[in-house]
Amino acid sequence: MAKVLILGAGMMGTALAQPLCDRGHEVRLVGTWKDADLVQGMKADRTHAKLGIKLHDRVSVWTHDELPTALQGVEAVALGVSSAGIKWACEALNGVLDRALPIFMITKGLELHGTELRTLPDVVAGSFTGALRDSLHPAAIAGPCIAGELARCVPTCVVLTGRSESTNRWLVELLQGPYYKVFPTTDVVGVEVCAALKNAFAMGIAFAEGLHKKAGGSSGSVAMHNLESAVFAQAALEMRWLTRALGSSGDSAVGLAGVGDLDVTTNGGRTGRFGRLLGEGLSVEQAIARMDGATLECLEILRVVERAFEVGAFGSVGRTQCPLLSHLIEVALHNEAVAIPLDRFFAAELSR
Amino acid sequence: MAKVLILGAGMMGTALAQPLCDRGHEVRLVGTWKDADLVQGMKADRTHAKLGIKLHDRVSVWTHDELPTALQGVEAVALGVSSAGIKWACEALNGVLDRALPIFMITKGLELHGTELRTLPDVVAGSFTGALRDSLHPAAIAGPCIAGELARCVPTCVVLTGRSESTNRWLVELLQGPYYKVFPTTDVVGVEVCAALKNAFAMGIAFAEGLHKKAGGSSGSVAMHNLESAVFAQAALEMRWLTRALGSSGDSAVGLAGVGDLDVTTNGGRTGRFGRLLGEGLSVEQAIARMDGATLECLEILRVVERAFEVGAFGSVGRTQCPLLSHLIEVALHNEAVAIPLDRFFAAELSR
Repeated sequence: MAKVLILGAGMMGTALAQPLCDRGHEVRLVGTWKDADLVQGMKADRTHAKLGIKLHDRVSVWTHDELPTALQGVEAVALGVSSAGIKWACEALNGVLDRALPIFMITKGLELHGTELRTLPDVVAGSFTGALRDSLHPAAIAGPCIAGELARCVPTCVVLTGRSESTNRWLVELLQGPYYKVFPTTDVVGVEVCAALKNAFAMGIAFAEGLHKKAGGSSGSVAMHNLESAVFAQAALEMRWLTRALGSSGDSAVGLAGVGDLDVTTNGGRTGRFGRLLGEGLSVEQAIARMDGATLECLEILRVVERAFEVGAFGSVGRTQCPLLSHLIEVALHNEAVAIPLDRFFAAELSR
Repeated sequence: MAKVLILGAGMMGTALAQPLCDRGHEVRLVGTWKDADLVQGMKADRTHAKLGIKLHDRVSVWTHDELPTALQGVEAVALGVSSAGIKWACEALNGVLDRALPIFMITKGLELHGTELRTLPDVVAGSFTGALRDSLHPAAIAGPCIAGELARCVPTCVVLTGRSESTNRWLVELLQGPYYKVFPTTDVVGVEVCAALKNAFAMGIAFAEGLHKKAGGSSGSVAMHNLESAVFAQAALEMRWLTRALGSSGDSAVGLAGVGDLDVTTNGGRTGRFGRLLGEGLSVEQAIARMDGATLECLEILRVVERAFEVGAFGSVGRTQCPLLSHLIEVALHNEAVAIPLDRFFAAELSR
């Protein structure tokens, strides 16, 4: 059995320890400087305050300044940080990682470098220097996975994507267990673009519930589900076109990372609540204030996507071909009122 | 403006009158013999008892024996019957339809003829004789559409599919309105197979909620959503493989008729409740009894699909390639216990 280090002790990073421990591995959970309170709590009573669960016996808890010691003898590293924490995590590892280890991340996001949209596995690989740069083949995990459910051993299926088939296979073997099913794919672009965009699209799917409430409706089986599901279908299509535009087959949009993750994300969470509030007619500022200033991943990815369209990063696919995503940008970043452009939906479907 | 006859005065048939009337058309709503009570009620107070809405002024209500008179001067016919009623509807029209009219249906289903799986538009065309057989180009409507929402003018997007592009265009022009967006496609097989299978898959997606309840869980954001969405993703993939196996591009699975309709169907309704009860551990008989003997479309389509696999109607795609659908057949038709075969999921995704 292996020793695995998880960098980042938030909900998802900590949840990941569960299947690893149940698989027989030893997990070293290292908090970032942002996780200080959570780490202190776990050191005190071995309970994760946000997840509300007790840690497995084979998890040890470390602070970020203990990273160099925690890394000793480790056979794989998982990045459990947020997309905002990726840069910090890479810098922290860069100084102390002295050998090529399989690295995988649960972080979702895209970065724009010039006119090129980069996935996080490529960003992480590129942040290392020398021999490590070419021998690390960072992988990423995506798919429908609510941390609180994985931590409670709910059956969960995810994809693991990276550019090296052999590293992917090794990682699947490391992670796979009776309730955590991990399916490998080398479609890094397809998986990562879907994983990053799903928060933005989930916001748009939630508009309908807000519009219904604004119109005086109550929840129930007759509401604005027809509109909600039309937006869902358009989201799936735009995911496919955008991933194809970046060189993917587009197949990931139809699987776990695409419609699977989109489905779970619309079941609740912050993004959905934010979309509902915008649908009700609140401005972005009002909605954020109502949510006590929560950090919203959908805003972050929409900013990247807006710039990506501006510099032509999606090649032949422009904002016109993605009327839903385009509307989401206007609503979330430029305070345009919600008015889902159904007339412009499904156009590219016709031309096929 | 046109005169349109809708045959079938159930929820969906009657809901369809709303966008037609708002578009300025005159609608003749003809009940089947099964709709006798609903028709009587609408004749008395112009209210549809199940939809709970008042009819538009431009709707007239007729009994099935008034069909020949109601057909006079009509420019298009909509079939609003259930799949079980299609045969009756075709026979009723066969005797009295004396000219080729655009016919479209909201009915969903597939029929097995020998080793060939036929879509309802083809079944309807084939039921006519002589010149009508070749000049009718029946079309079908599919996509996320809850009748009670359409009747209340909730924005709704659907696809209209038929083998004649010009008939499709004419029908879109007839139906299209500010809240009813109709997108034409000639992918009859793709649309119809997705539309028919979605009830079966929605049943399977609901298993997770039943399993969660059986394990003593309460509903909330931490439940078995991960499992639910894994099944959703696998359903999308199997829809795509099965439609491709029948000669479709598979694109409809990613659009309104596929993931869009699947999304709306999992939001509630009888199929979802049935799936939850099976997930809780009830037998099919117990679940049906609990639902007061409701007719379940998912059982009907699963019977057709089981036989279709037996005779090789899906060509190279067999039950092994569709582990979800195969499990649904065993649970719903042969009382096997619910045990979602996650290990066999997403296999074909890998081989792409």
